[in-house]
Amino acid sequence: MSEKLKGNMMIAQSGGPTVVINQSLVGAVIEAKRHNQIKGVYGSLNGIKGVMDGRFVDLRKETSANLGKVAATPCSALGSVRKKPNEQDCEIIFRMLQKYDIRYFFYIGGNDSAETANILNESAKKVNYEFRCFHIPKTIDNDLLENDHTPGYGSAAKFVAMAVMGDNQDNMSLPGVKIDVVMGRHAGFLVAASALARVNASDGPHLIYFPERPFTKEQFLKDVEKTYSKYGRCLIAVSEGISDEKGEAIASKFTKEVDTHGNVQLSGTGVLGDLLADMIRQELKVSRVRADTFGYLQRSFPGISSEVDAKEAYEAGKLAVRYAVSGNIDGSVSIKRKAGKKYGAYFEVVNLNKVAKNTRSMPPAFINRAGNGVTADFINYAKPLVGKLPDVGFLKKYPVLRK
Amino acid sequence: MSEKLKGNMMIAQSGGPTVVINQSLVGAVIEAKRHNQIKGVYGSLNGIKGVMDGRFVDLRKETSANLGKVAATPCSALGSVRKKPNEQDCEIIFRMLQKYDIRYFFYIGGNDSAETANILNESAKKVNYEFRCFHIPKTIDNDLLENDHTPGYGSAAKFVAMAVMGDNQDNMSLPGVKIDVVMGRHAGFLVAASALARVNASDGPHLIYFPERPFTKEQFLKDVEKTYSKYGRCLIAVSEGISDEKGEAIASKFTKEVDTHGNVQLSGTGVLGDLLADMIRQELKVSRVRADTFGYLQRSFPGISSEVDAKEAYEAGKLAVRYAVSGNIDGSVSIKRKAGKKYGAYFEVVNLNKVAKNTRSMPPAFINRAGNGVTADFINYAKPLVGKLPDVGFLKKYPVLRK
Repeated sequence: MSEKLKGNMMIAQSGGPTVVINQSLVGAVIEAKRHNQIKGVYGSLNGIKGVMDGRFVDLRKETSANLGKVAATPCSALGSVRKKPNEQDCEIIFRMLQKYDIRYFFYIGGNDSAETANILNESAKKVNYEFRCFHIPKTIDNDLLENDHTPGYGSAAKFVAMAVMGDNQDNMSLPGVKIDVVMGRHAGFLVAASALARVNASDGPHLIYFPERPFTKEQFLKDVEKTYSKYGRCLIAVSEGISDEKGEAIASKFTKEVDTHGNVQLSGTGVLGDLLADMIRQELKVSRVRADTFGYLQRSFPGISSEVDAKEAYEAGKLAVRYAVSGNIDGSVSIKRKAGKKYGAYFEVVNLNKVAKNTRSMPPAFINRAGNGVTADFINYAKPLVGKLPDVGFLKKYPVLRK
Repeated sequence: MSEKLKGNMMIAQSGGPTVVINQSLVGAVIEAKRHNQIKGVYGSLNGIKGVMDGRFVDLRKETSANLGKVAATPCSALGSVRKKPNEQDCEIIFRMLQKYDIRYFFYIGGNDSAETANILNESAKKVNYEFRCFHIPKTIDNDLLENDHTPGYGSAAKFVAMAVMGDNQDNMSLPGVKIDVVMGRHAGFLVAASALARVNASDGPHLIYFPERPFTKEQFLKDVEKTYSKYGRCLIAVSEGISDEKGEAIASKFTKEVDTHGNVQLSGTGVLGDLLADMIRQELKVSRVRADTFGYLQRSFPGISSEVDAKEAYEAGKLAVRYAVSGNIDGSVSIKRKAGKKYGAYFEVVNLNKVAKNTRSMPPAFINRAGNGVTADFINYAKPLVGKLPDVGFLKKYPVLRK
């Protein structure tokens, strides 16, 4: 094989968006322009669906100024797709890649995208088609294997922390029980980030529930009652993916839709929050119970991305291209954490099949023994990924002498 | 009556919080310290409920530095209440005010708070108790009479515009129909602010529905179908308060709770969004339909308040005190807009009974003829109140020649 593989590059985005997924796109495009062996720099619209349909855009023609603005814009500028290709799809995709002389392929997405990249890469090997294939990680759920954390998580975590910070003030203003439903189907990293909202010991979230621990109505009501009698209010952050002891999602009984990956749709609906609120109203003597579901804002809210997250997402895209042009390697760009007290990250290439298919959950050391809160280990883990949060002030409330 | 009425001051907060309601509190407290005729500067915890219970805090003892932090913190630092006092309550409140020699009373809230202030003021007149009584406006709904706009609206409108801006990117990434449910029981000002999210003509929100116009399923489905066939996607912003032709709220059939003002609780639940989403799934051939309800984040999200809103909220608090010490006047501080192209506001005192009880709706000139969008007049009205929004970028999408 030639040391310097010449040909066109294609990049695409897949799965649920994040607010920094365009950083990875732009990082890769700008890096690609620096390497002569990469000729055309193409983007496929709506992931592999665009590849199948031949809907490609020329990213070389975009100005640097416009690319800079796109990088700072939430969600997938090329459009996204939720599609797991079958064998026949893969044949079509691979034929298109050959037709357009695509020698460099970059797929930004979660573990399903890593799997797609892996299948394409294996197809190329079978027919001896010289091909560099990279997966660039993104997911707000933070559930990719082989990564300390993934681009998209820090910013979504920052949104959740800010939202709960504000909601804690709201709950202090008008006391009652408040439930906030947070994304994360199988991993509790995002709901755990709500803990970063706390400034004082009495601040919410007072209770956090994870998909990693079985959820029981009895324990939940006990927890809420205890907190409410202590503080006169209770702020709860709960993952959309909380499940019973059999592993059945509490919310899944109330939803119908299943995506093409076979995942039940848990977001974009208020049923879980309303269900838990009704539980509390019926069983405990609390008059004011409210629930909010944060929904898509977690992955799309503009203007407040985590600086570290944005930077690392850009780096992941840039390095994928750099790795790809460096020799005959394929893989997924993974983020590792440097040892030591001060936060630092470094990147490594790992095999595509190591990131594909399976996902990871919160390490048990991040969840407290009662299963209703996080540990200091988690706070240390998440804080540098999220960065600075807004300052909040509290009145000292010096009492006036009673008359 | 003495020109310079000497005595203590009490300030309290009422109703649903806003992200700038503490600006008004701090503006009033800092101004009060400048006037010798005001002795004690007391805050009542949880509005008039705190007055009835004698739960007062000494705001003179708070440091300026801490007050500055509190001003920038969302929601009611003194705690809030949803309580409309009856005659007996008013007697208790008035007795407490006399007991603590309260001569200056400031109530930050919506029209219900103006009404409470008015009742207390009338009670004082009846018994010749010298008393200055002011209402300081706040409401995210922007529905107070005698005001061009009210503190709290600009920041809530900014949150809604930012959220829809991000959601438009999300909806472009993964096309489908998306419904965003926005607060505002009887006034559409907040849902209208979603229109500020648009950068390009094809951007969402494509459809906006207001409580001011009767909502019919038939017209709604027609609108959605038309938009979807034009853009291949449809982003909808809908007020929680949309009602049928008889004036019955579409969401009200599904909620149970009524607050002490007799208002049905429409927030904090996903039923309206889910109901509309089901309508579209069942009647139109759209596979991907999602709904989010923005909920309490609209009134509590920290760190992104509108600058103009924060400044005007502070001014309203400051001026209320300045008016009160200036002579024998009572009233509500109202915000008016200066004539001319460049935005400017000025403040006036209006009679309490003019702001109490009734509320205002969107002027017909702000809603388009079809009742599913805003006019340029509204954009001109709302833009300066919200201020700068995040930049977003779009790929130019230069096509690659098909092979």
